[in-house]
Amino acid sequence: MAENASLENFLDVAIDAAKRAGQVDLVTETDKACEDLIFNHLKQHCPGHQFIGEETTAACGVTELTDHPTWIVDPLDGTTNFVHGFPFVCVSIGLTIGKVPTVGVIYNPILDELFTGIRGKGAFLNGNPIKVSTQSELVKSLLATEVGTKRDMTTVDATTNRLNSLLFKVRSLRMSGSCALNLCGIACGRLDIFYELGFGGPWDVAGGAVIVQEAGGLVYDPSGKTFDITAQRIAASNPQLKEAFVQALGETL
Amino acid sequence: MAENASLENFLDVAIDAAKRAGQVDLVTETDKACEDLIFNHLKQHCPGHQFIGEETTAACGVTELTDHPTWIVDPLDGTTNFVHGFPFVCVSIGLTIGKVPTVGVIYNPILDELFTGIRGKGAFLNGNPIKVSTQSELVKSLLATEVGTKRDMTTVDATTNRLNSLLFKVRSLRMSGSCALNLCGIACGRLDIFYELGFGGPWDVAGGAVIVQEAGGLVYDPSGKTFDITAQRIAASNPQLKEAFVQALGETL
Repeated sequence: MAENASLENFLDVAIDAAKRAGQVDLVTETDKACEDLIFNHLKQHCPGHQFIGEETTAACGVTELTDHPTWIVDPLDGTTNFVHGFPFVCVSIGLTIGKVPTVGVIYNPILDELFTGIRGKGAFLNGNPIKVSTQSELVKSLLATEVGTKRDMTTVDATTNRLNSLLFKVRSLRMSGSCALNLCGIACGRLDIFYELGFGGPWDVAGGAVIVQEAGGLVYDPSGKTFDITAQRIAASNPQLKEAFVQALGETL
Repeated sequence: MAENASLENFLDVAIDAAKRAGQVDLVTETDKACEDLIFNHLKQHCPGHQFIGEETTAACGVTELTDHPTWIVDPLDGTTNFVHGFPFVCVSIGLTIGKVPTVGVIYNPILDELFTGIRGKGAFLNGNPIKVSTQSELVKSLLATEVGTKRDMTTVDATTNRLNSLLFKVRSLRMSGSCALNLCGIACGRLDIFYELGFGGPWDVAGGAVIVQEAGGLVYDPSGKTFDITAQRIAASNPQLKEAFVQALGETL
């Protein structure tokens, strides 16, 4: 792709890659094969870019995120769901430029839902503009989080202590099993607040972060500080809920 | 409907009612109007039967469940999800005869998924036979539960203490916000184990119980004792997981 390729071009390439990956039969192919398919497609069209993937990282170690345009890919977010047929499964593809999430594509092949976003140009579900919820009261908010995969006593106690504290302050709690789709849920107003601490890596949030922001939402560290895509901590909500939620969560951190 | 009407006839009537209810625009109509629509349809075809509904109970008080054929209806399970557009929403219709769940219809209009079951004649998703999972190891199981609506400290502490204990014993945790759809998730193997204590009433489980059983699963009290449809407590899984799960949950009850 030419050096003056637009962000729209990058989005189209990412959508193609996500839809191809969504057709892969993961009963016979592996997550790694699916990631290779996505990377090959992206590299063909964006040869000068860099690439970070969950499966490649697992196989080859951590690649440092630089300011260079970098595609960050999770070929299958919600692996446990996929194994069980629980319908929250997706391909997540994000492009960072200067470490800033700039293009995001998240595709749920089971529900055929395609979430897209380009920095400065809006967020969409299957081509229709999406917006975060207008909920302004924490006590009426639908909160999503996940219990992660770590099962040491310190982590589990911290997780359930947070849930205990937050249950008195929000309307109800959902756990879907997909970090990327929780971010999409925030972006289209199905969920009011999402937080997760200790997820796998930047591939879980690189696509979703820009989609939330372009839908009018905020992505921030659970402490309320600036979001760091490499920190494995995230919170997301509309702007009205941030202060009250950060305060409520802060009492539990 | 004639006295010799078969259970298949009852199922067809219930499917019609559920699909009509699924088309109701709940932005302009109320849950109660939706329940009236379902009851009117059922009464037209089954005039001698009795009826218990969530909304009617809320408005008029509790109707005692008898051995008489009784339709038990929740016109909208997953109300919080519906308000938010979170796609776990359903109409639940169950027929008990001799207090035994005998016909079940659960329809999710957002995903257009229709779960059906007749005692002794199998369980189906959109007409295709369904089976519970074959998972036999608790530690590999996907567990679903809900946090309910009670927010007194005793209830919340008990809820999160159970989660804390169970997180060490299962693979992961989901909360969808619909008791009836959690039972359908068990029936089609998307989930391995579900339990909930303190849900609203028999309308949350009357449709799902027979669907789970006809898919090869077990429905039981979380203590391991016999399921009581009026007790507002339920657990469901395949037969292989019951003993280990009851033991794990028992340590927390």
